[in-house]
Amino acid sequence: MRTYSLYDVFVRNDNISGDQTALVDGNDRLSFHELHESVIRTANVLAEKGVAQGDTVAALAMNRIGFFILLGALAKLGAILVPLNWRLSNGELSYILGDCSPQFLFSDHTHRETAMEIAKETNITILDIDCWRPEVKEKSQVKGILGFTDEVVDGDSPLCIIYTAAVAGRPRGAVLSHSNLIAANMQVIIELGLSAADVNLNMLPLFHITGLNLALAVMQVGGRNIVIDKFDEEKTLKLTDTEKVTLWGSFPPILSRAMALYEKGGHNISSLKYVVGLDGPEVIASFEQMTEAKFWILYGQSETSGFVTFSPASNRMGSAGRQGCLSSFCLMDETGQAVGPGGIGEIVVRGPLVFQGYWNQDKVNDHTFRNGCHHTGDLGQVDEDGYLYFKGRKPEKELIKPGGENVYPAEVEAAVLEHPAVMAVCVIGVPDPQFGEGVKAVCVLKSGQQLSGKELTSFVGSRIAGYKKPRYVEFVNELPRKNDQIDREQVKKMWG
Amino acid sequence: MRTYSLYDVFVRNDNISGDQTALVDGNDRLSFHELHESVIRTANVLAEKGVAQGDTVAALAMNRIGFFILLGALAKLGAILVPLNWRLSNGELSYILGDCSPQFLFSDHTHRETAMEIAKETNITILDIDCWRPEVKEKSQVKGILGFTDEVVDGDSPLCIIYTAAVAGRPRGAVLSHSNLIAANMQVIIELGLSAADVNLNMLPLFHITGLNLALAVMQVGGRNIVIDKFDEEKTLKLTDTEKVTLWGSFPPILSRAMALYEKGGHNISSLKYVVGLDGPEVIASFEQMTEAKFWILYGQSETSGFVTFSPASNRMGSAGRQGCLSSFCLMDETGQAVGPGGIGEIVVRGPLVFQGYWNQDKVNDHTFRNGCHHTGDLGQVDEDGYLYFKGRKPEKELIKPGGENVYPAEVEAAVLEHPAVMAVCVIGVPDPQFGEGVKAVCVLKSGQQLSGKELTSFVGSRIAGYKKPRYVEFVNELPRKNDQIDREQVKKMWG
Repeated sequence: MRTYSLYDVFVRNDNISGDQTALVDGNDRLSFHELHESVIRTANVLAEKGVAQGDTVAALAMNRIGFFILLGALAKLGAILVPLNWRLSNGELSYILGDCSPQFLFSDHTHRETAMEIAKETNITILDIDCWRPEVKEKSQVKGILGFTDEVVDGDSPLCIIYTAAVAGRPRGAVLSHSNLIAANMQVIIELGLSAADVNLNMLPLFHITGLNLALAVMQVGGRNIVIDKFDEEKTLKLTDTEKVTLWGSFPPILSRAMALYEKGGHNISSLKYVVGLDGPEVIASFEQMTEAKFWILYGQSETSGFVTFSPASNRMGSAGRQGCLSSFCLMDETGQAVGPGGIGEIVVRGPLVFQGYWNQDKVNDHTFRNGCHHTGDLGQVDEDGYLYFKGRKPEKELIKPGGENVYPAEVEAAVLEHPAVMAVCVIGVPDPQFGEGVKAVCVLKSGQQLSGKELTSFVGSRIAGYKKPRYVEFVNELPRKNDQIDREQVKKMWG
Repeated sequence: MRTYSLYDVFVRNDNISGDQTALVDGNDRLSFHELHESVIRTANVLAEKGVAQGDTVAALAMNRIGFFILLGALAKLGAILVPLNWRLSNGELSYILGDCSPQFLFSDHTHRETAMEIAKETNITILDIDCWRPEVKEKSQVKGILGFTDEVVDGDSPLCIIYTAAVAGRPRGAVLSHSNLIAANMQVIIELGLSAADVNLNMLPLFHITGLNLALAVMQVGGRNIVIDKFDEEKTLKLTDTEKVTLWGSFPPILSRAMALYEKGGHNISSLKYVVGLDGPEVIASFEQMTEAKFWILYGQSETSGFVTFSPASNRMGSAGRQGCLSSFCLMDETGQAVGPGGIGEIVVRGPLVFQGYWNQDKVNDHTFRNGCHHTGDLGQVDEDGYLYFKGRKPEKELIKPGGENVYPAEVEAAVLEHPAVMAVCVIGVPDPQFGEGVKAVCVLKSGQQLSGKELTSFVGSRIAGYKKPRYVEFVNELPRKNDQIDREQVKKMWG
């Protein structure tokens, strides 16, 4: 009786708001009832194809209505969705498919070819993520409260695997349960004060936790999602105007680009109330001057199902906000002791937001969950009013964040080192006016070798996702070392 | 790492709103920091006295700050609070103490004598629920984020036992976990749209789920509770005015009494935004005409940690509202099949609100949780927009609700039958202008015996709680029978 799955959210919305619009994507407008019907049909088809509790299914697609239907259907069956980042290289995608062994790979038209290529080796059947479409207009006559589903899905069972944390060069699949995602929804709804009147512009990718979290929170509270395949300033402003959008998620350079276009005039975005994400203080301040909306800053990661802390940026500019109503964290030193007031320590999290562990990584999980809590690898400091300040990553969890994506130096370094002319490399994050942070490779070439930055960048881009390739390359004679290892902190000081 | 207890709510509030007022009771005003400090001190004292995970502690007291401190301390320790209804008779209280075997009994001054009497037999030590007071002004200098507590408390472990469901003549202890209470909080916060700016007038008793739920929801979102020992129209209006109260819980006759006084003038209650509870359509309509506030109707029980459905009454007058964002229910017939649209069936609930079972009642629990969900014993019907209509109790779960209290006919009948002049009795609920519903005893006297209604009522009042004694007594020559049992439905038709 304590089972409650994300599918129950679809049922409730159908029960109490069946006629309301749940999803808009171009000309498609789905009511909560139509959405639920599509979810049931898709679940039936998948069940016939053999998908059962605990099975994985992957999706390689831009944002679209079919994503929500697939997620609902898998939630109903107790199966697991692996949403893939379509910006990854084929090699990276193949690695993930090999790691989580999905039964099916759903793709959209744009990614059909890539899907076929990466599915070849692993012999995975490809299905069309838009396949719900032909039948959607067939309305059922069901009225009154709907019965429980036949499937009994434990709220603590996995629903999503989000690949992240490639700190050792390969990504790990963070397993999120139904209860994780629902707890994260509750928190966003309460902190922002969302209601069924809210409208989310779903432009952040659904394979990342922020996009997924904001979309599902608005859906859980009975609000509407306007889906666009990916961010585009023209669409963003136009749809915000016509669909009376109240919520955006935003990572650099989204806000600057949208504001640059907004300043030219012609769009009414007065419906916008909240923008949730990250950006520089100047961009945030000028955005808040230009509009009625509030920018909400945050700290979180896939492993915490979304946000541990978040607050209006103007409450404490430069901070990452305060702990949400379902989050519990503290700062710890290397020995597992709580760090005193004002000190810097690793952000360590407990509670219903903490993920279920990395897929097939028992040893890593034991380490991550030592002392009974999740060690984020991020460093923080807290002021006397409880505002968290992000203080970088622990050395072994080095991470660069260009435009909201996660880039792990180890991944980039491995790709750079594949080039025959390179002897040594250290990849660091540097300030970037457009993306907040940029990837920089500091390289030592082998004796007598010649290589341009452009050549190296294009070489790396053929191996890993485009957003991971260095935007900045610097060739140096020698890299500083400490205990026989490259001294990353010193590299940052010298060339950061 | 997935542990999150109600104690974590106290920690968070201290972290982010330490200086804000959490609780007001007469001249006492406790900030979230002072509240947390008092919780820690009380937990330390209890731990020294031997209270550990899974132990029970009872409280016999009117609403007061000490109740919240005790609850927080027990939450920290992983122990269980049994809040007792002080309107019960000594015999009833002794039964409960015997059933749940508390280590300590906390009482207030008013109930010290009762506490000593009922604790005598069971040898339970009595402690003062106001004992936090002397030290409360001692402020600590802790700033910055607080570390995790040493105790690791599983969110699914029991935190409260609320005695209810005396369908077989004796109450059963409904066990609520930390997660149950927190889920109920989340739901109230989201549905009502509560924020840290909200102020609850805590006049409903904290030993009942509605009073507890509203108080904890407001506390969880960082709002303020104004505590009064029990409802009193003068205090209610005065404090609503001076403390800018936004939320009341209300069962008959609270609203009518408060409104009768309000009409005389002299009180400004314009801060009031929501009243949550039950009352008649006329009372609700006239209340909403007189004030700016909305009345929220509901359906729920202790076993569902609060509300399964709730909505503004004016949305669908006469209904019990629509399902909350964490509730999942359906209507079932006797065979466990879902009842079709428009039909009447038992309200059956699943999800995070469903309690952990009755204390020490394995057999009853198996039956209550059959088919993997909680069978409420209540009958309902749902309209095409998802509004639930309460349609009475299933015969085996007969219940009368005078003024929001639960009275089980079986309890009253057993007390009536103890009178030597009574041969047979059937206790039913009848409409009551003041309390919504009233208890009526339909009696057959033994041949040659004489008894007045007043005599019988006073006899019963010496055995069970005053609110359970019949307000109406009717003596008849014979009670209708069916299959050798008194035909309750026929009694209702003839004398209801």
